[in-house]
Amino acid sequence: MRRDYYFWLLGGDRRQVHLARLLREDGHQVQTYALEQALPCAETLEGISRADCVILPLPAAGAQGILNAPLSDHKLPLRGLMELLNPGQLLCGGKLGDDFARQCRERGLTAVDYFEREELAVRNAVPTAEGAIKIAMEELPTTLYDARVLVIGFGRIGKLLAHRLRGLGAQVTVSARSFADLAWIEAYGYKSEHTDELAGWLCSYDLIVNTVPAPVLGEAALEDVAPGCLILDLASAPGGVDFEAAAALGLKAIHALSLPGKAAPVTAGKILRDTIYHVLQEVDGDDA
Amino acid sequence: MRRDYYFWLLGGDRRQVHLARLLREDGHQVQTYALEQALPCAETLEGISRADCVILPLPAAGAQGILNAPLSDHKLPLRGLMELLNPGQLLCGGKLGDDFARQCRERGLTAVDYFEREELAVRNAVPTAEGAIKIAMEELPTTLYDARVLVIGFGRIGKLLAHRLRGLGAQVTVSARSFADLAWIEAYGYKSEHTDELAGWLCSYDLIVNTVPAPVLGEAALEDVAPGCLILDLASAPGGVDFEAAAALGLKAIHALSLPGKAAPVTAGKILRDTIYHVLQEVDGDDA
Amino acid sequence: MRRDYYFWLLGGDRRQVHLARLLREDGHQVQTYALEQALPCAETLEGISRADCVILPLPAAGAQGILNAPLSDHKLPLRGLMELLNPGQLLCGGKLGDDFARQCRERGLTAVDYFEREELAVRNAVPTAEGAIKIAMEELPTTLYDARVLVIGFGRIGKLLAHRLRGLGAQVTVSARSFADLAWIEAYGYKSEHTDELAGWLCSYDLIVNTVPAPVLGEAALEDVAPGCLILDLASAPGGVDFEAAAALGLKAIHALSLPGKAAPVTAGKILRDTIYHVLQEVDGDDA
Amino acid sequence: MRRDYYFWLLGGDRRQVHLARLLREDGHQVQTYALEQALPCAETLEGISRADCVILPLPAAGAQGILNAPLSDHKLPLRGLMELLNPGQLLCGGKLGDDFARQCRERGLTAVDYFEREELAVRNAVPTAEGAIKIAMEELPTTLYDARVLVIGFGRIGKLLAHRLRGLGAQVTVSARSFADLAWIEAYGYKSEHTDELAGWLCSYDLIVNTVPAPVLGEAALEDVAPGCLILDLASAPGGVDFEAAAALGLKAIHALSLPGKAAPVTAGKILRDTIYHVLQEVDGDDA
Repeated sequence: MRRDYYFWLLGGDRRQVHLARLLREDGHQVQTYALEQALPCAETLEGISRADCVILPLPAAGAQGILNAPLSDHKLPLRGLMELLNPGQLLCGGKLGDDFARQCRERGLTAVDYFEREELAVRNAVPTAEGAIKIAMEELPTTLYDARVLVIGFGRIGKLLAHRLRGLGAQVTVSARSFADLAWIEAYGYKSEHTDELAGWLCSYDLIVNTVPAPVLGEAALEDVAPGCLILDLASAPGGVDFEAAAALGLKAIHALSLPGKAAPVTAGKILRDTIYHVLQEVDGDDA
Repeated sequence: MRRDYYFWLLGGDRRQVHLARLLREDGHQVQTYALEQALPCAETLEGISRADCVILPLPAAGAQGILNAPLSDHKLPLRGLMELLNPGQLLCGGKLGDDFARQCRERGLTAVDYFEREELAVRNAVPTAEGAIKIAMEELPTTLYDARVLVIGFGRIGKLLAHRLRGLGAQVTVSARSFADLAWIEAYGYKSEHTDELAGWLCSYDLIVNTVPAPVLGEAALEDVAPGCLILDLASAPGGVDFEAAAALGLKAIHALSLPGKAAPVTAGKILRDTIYHVLQEVDGDDA
Repeated sequence: MRRDYYFWLLGGDRRQVHLARLLREDGHQVQTYALEQALPCAETLEGISRADCVILPLPAAGAQGILNAPLSDHKLPLRGLMELLNPGQLLCGGKLGDDFARQCRERGLTAVDYFEREELAVRNAVPTAEGAIKIAMEELPTTLYDARVLVIGFGRIGKLLAHRLRGLGAQVTVSARSFADLAWIEAYGYKSEHTDELAGWLCSYDLIVNTVPAPVLGEAALEDVAPGCLILDLASAPGGVDFEAAAALGLKAIHALSLPGKAAPVTAGKILRDTIYHVLQEVDGDDA
Repeated sequence: MRRDYYFWLLGGDRRQVHLARLLREDGHQVQTYALEQALPCAETLEGISRADCVILPLPAAGAQGILNAPLSDHKLPLRGLMELLNPGQLLCGGKLGDDFARQCRERGLTAVDYFEREELAVRNAVPTAEGAIKIAMEELPTTLYDARVLVIGFGRIGKLLAHRLRGLGAQVTVSARSFADLAWIEAYGYKSEHTDELAGWLCSYDLIVNTVPAPVLGEAALEDVAPGCLILDLASAPGGVDFEAAAALGLKAIHALSLPGKAAPVTAGKILRDTIYHVLQEVDGDDA
């Protein structure tokens, strides 16, 4: 791949900081803006119109269309940023939103939402699974070895989490809904349950991890959970667990979100870098 | 599930024989036909119109629409069979074909092609992977432990084969084409290669297993394969390997097909049974 | 096994508290002493002479031969305790010491040091390995997945730690000294290095875990370690790492001790319980 | 290591043939004798007194102290060979026997029995485990995936066989006798049983593999084994299974011996080569 791209990175958190460093280590020219609490930055956006690739954070926007920049005092409207760019320039960001993406296209920009790329989602599932394991190790007074663990859902996170838990010696059950998913669960050697038929059996687990973004652990289900069982919900807000009911029942339930950036910010930065490179390959026809 | 279904099993090989036994062990009433070289059978089809479920083999038909019945002297046209059945009856078979399936529907039968069910395909991938490992163990003068193995393709068989090979201590590389598949391959801990960029690196493997039903190992690629390397092609005919070129180059290349029935007929019978049960659940609304 | 033993538990930390609960759950009669900050206890030792088994903590003694009792204000000399017991009674404790054990024998007591039992050491290696993984997850800004990890030593902890690390997808190298250990390391699929030949290669690891109770990472070796590499020393004091040199070099080095009780006190209590049961089986000829 | 040793290889089977090739590939000078049915050999032993290392096969001797040479018509008494060698020369062989080893030492030779080296035994356990898996795959009409397997004994072969079987998805139980071994079995995640308490439970396995060289499966035990269960005995003759009783009961029991040479002769040759190199390192003080 070319090692002389000219990147502009705007806003974001520690991941964006690591991303800047990683791109520089690969030999690229990198300008940063609105990260001044973490590293030296440009004061203005002068020169951004010559960038090969402008990178916004995940999510790109905070409230009211202002650039998401927790490490900065700058208040940059994304709309204004867009108008500084020339037709043909590449703009990458996470969760760009339909409106902003359409506006970019209308201006002739190539706008790519990296959060929609499957390889980023798959790779982010690794630090998510590790982050969940770390929390479980911190919270449980027993080992994960020999613990009876239920993973609800066999999507990206469910697959990799079950794999790691078994690597640690846990007794892993995974629940899913389709016959095909149940066949996969068994082919990998886990016990399988149907997600709609968990009622009455939840009391036999020491750890329950939900990965399904739908209400799967409501009050009735939670009444069946054993005291001392830890519940982790990894599904994006509002999650799949009735946290109020859990609290009323005296159960410990944790909604663990954004684990890649928290548990492994350097890894999260590398995942962003590689995904940006894939985008460049596809846009430029550049060979890896 | 109900334990009093009335099944008719027609034709087929050892798998169908095991299926008959397994259904009886579960308490069902089972009548067999056109399996008389393996077990006692009905002489006629009298009574088949009362069956809850008629099961044809995989594939259902041999030449010219005659029932596939290698363990029998009967020559039963499927068309004729169909006319003995009543509207509403359930007919299951493998690779029914579009024409026959349409004719069944026109007669009011519920015709289900179990070979198209994803859970059967997933579960069959397990004996396929084991069968491939058995052949590799028989053919290679080294252990699979520490062998450098390339698996081409990360579909059902590729996933489970890579998993088992690593369980045996092989050094596993998997090739695929999409960034998402490559991310999965790495998340599971295998080395990844792009299937289109294998040229020049094939010489570094002791075993190459193809699972992709497309020409991936042509003459040019094969010239790069090391002498002594074993090539297994698991893709359905015509497979993905140029076998003539391999032979001319003195390479050992094996096209291994229908491994579930060969390597593990009892397991293959159980997979059929469970898939039939799933069909009955969906058709009857019967709870498992 | 008999479910009506009469136990006295004296002193100790949370593990001893869990042990009391577990023994009661199995139906035994349990009296506790010198744990009054955690649970109701006897005020005096009256009745201890009728105990089937007296259990001291790990280690049994604190300074000057006083019972190790961090959850109590009692100051009980072990010597005085011994004189309350009758010949033939069973006394179990951890690290009893040669002198005390001899005195017990002279008085006709059956004194067993459970810390010397191999099955306890093996089982304790599981929470030790998990505790090390938890610390590494907390300290490293990357995932353990794909991290380059060196485990020094292939004893109990080294074996189980390497096994778990690989389960998480780390790139695991293990060092040992004997050809036999090196052969074991390779047979399990890890990369192997000779412990005496690590110099010059330490810079290639993201995490180094020492399990050898001997000075293996001195100043010269540490100079080779990469900045950002985390060093965990699991060997009992004084450990195998020159911590002063590490600090001077700006390396993060952590001496992690007593992990079972810290990371998984309930599991540690179960391990104690099962070991006590084994002792009773052997002493009483009682069947499990 | 030095790459210019002068080796003489005498007698043996395909392993010895592969060993000769491997030593030559490493640059050494290799003379062979009594392997003439497989490769060109010296007609006489002239020059052997200048060899750095003389390598006899495993076992070194056939009947009456004659060199074990199945690929040759030569009848060489080992006693006579010894007298051609000079004091100080190195002689390696498998199962040399106490008498011959003593005679060698009396003559001033350095005689090393490589079969007694732990690293060779460990490494040979890998092809032994694979060979056992191959046989099980060939004999069982089911997959090893999900098969209920009992491994008797947790020595070298038991450890590696259990590890591989689980890698294939089998339900693995291992039996042993000491509390420490049982703790190891559980720490690696297998179910454990006491070898003396298998009676009454053997009927629940699809595959039983014995690795203990003692009578563990006698007539009474075998009566409990399920019809269709496969029994593999890997223990050296006479093994641990009562084969006559098994046959009378209609059980399939296979005594599988010398699996490394049969299942993976090239790997077996490499193991020999590396072990010889270790011997040379220790004898010569030669660095690897």
